[in-house]
Amino acid sequence: MTRAARGLFVTLEGGDGSGKSTQAELLAEWLRASGREVVRTREPGGTDVGLEIRELVLHHRGDIAPRAEALLYAADRAHHVATLVRPALERGAVVLQDRYLDSSVAYQGAGRVLDADEVRRLSLWATDDLLPDLTILLDLDEAAARARLDGARTRYDRLEAEGASFHARVRAAYLELAAAEPERFLVLDATLPVDELATAIREAVGERLVGGDG
Amino acid sequence: MTRAARGLFVTLEGGDGSGKSTQAELLAEWLRASGREVVRTREPGGTDVGLEIRELVLHHRGDIAPRAEALLYAADRAHHVATLVRPALERGAVVLQDRYLDSSVAYQGAGRVLDADEVRRLSLWATDDLLPDLTILLDLDEAAARARLDGARTRYDRLEAEGASFHARVRAAYLELAAAEPERFLVLDATLPVDELATAIREAVGERLVGGDG
Repeated sequence: MTRAARGLFVTLEGGDGSGKSTQAELLAEWLRASGREVVRTREPGGTDVGLEIRELVLHHRGDIAPRAEALLYAADRAHHVATLVRPALERGAVVLQDRYLDSSVAYQGAGRVLDADEVRRLSLWATDDLLPDLTILLDLDEAAARARLDGARTRYDRLEAEGASFHARVRAAYLELAAAEPERFLVLDATLPVDELATAIREAVGERLVGGDG
Repeated sequence: MTRAARGLFVTLEGGDGSGKSTQAELLAEWLRASGREVVRTREPGGTDVGLEIRELVLHHRGDIAPRAEALLYAADRAHHVATLVRPALERGAVVLQDRYLDSSVAYQGAGRVLDADEVRRLSLWATDDLLPDLTILLDLDEAAARARLDGARTRYDRLEAEGASFHARVRAAYLELAAAEPERFLVLDATLPVDELATAIREAVGERLVGGDG
């Protein structure tokens, strides 16, 4: 694993409706108030190449061979990390990214036809082994996730349409990843009050910033 | 390595101007005359996804991170093999492909910033380990290659513009690949007469067709 010279790379993971955006916003505000540069990003969206790749994948939805699709997402990640994430970390910024390699492993590896370890290796090759300093997993069981999405009248996307058993497998895969790297992961119950979650996240980030500066 | 059930997968390698197209055409005519189904292909061009990927790479030439570019080409290959090459081999066709993984290894691995073994592994993952049954390497030294291209008034492309030392490294990489897998490779001096080359190629293909049918 390669560590950034000065910055901090924080990823947020969890299903849709788990509150990642809300927590990223609160964390960014707190960091900026303390004078830190914060870069919020996601894949795709950080780069023009990434947007074109995603456009290509979506345009051909269902017609792209599984390995080709995984390679296209890995290409997006490779470009995003090389041109946006690493430069930000090198100048000392805190990068807050919505979903990263754990999403690829949990969704594509656990739910699809490809082997989870292979998906992880592909992602690590793409990024020249850039792992997050901290990964916040907002854990939500299926019933709670569905209730939240129904409540928000959010349309189910393709993955969500695959149903409860798929979600259960993704959740189990996330928890397994967290158990394998307890120092990198902070697992939080996404049904806790927003302020309580924000406090726990600030504490974990603060510890790593102190550790990084020392 | 996975072998096709019935067909034969033949790839042609060598620099531009080495005569790959001419030999592929002669071989295809010979095979068709004997009643074989022949599929001639290249990357990209075999699939719409491949064309879009190549368009993306060319449009952003020079701006795409090296690993992202390698992953995009691998995605093209993955889709091409899964949707065009394997189905053709499964129905018993002879697939003649202009350039395949040895090109990636020789050009990108030997000439660029990425490790050749990593590029090969990526390509094998992309194709679920599909290696050619026969690879014809039309070997041409730098002086002969340049003379041919100058003679044909062909524009030098980006790789060619990188000069003689680059070509020498690519040629050396090709010869090294051939030496490592002598049973897969047929190395021919591209300056031999066209008919002589065609005869040698027919012989090698014929042997493998007999072997495959037996």
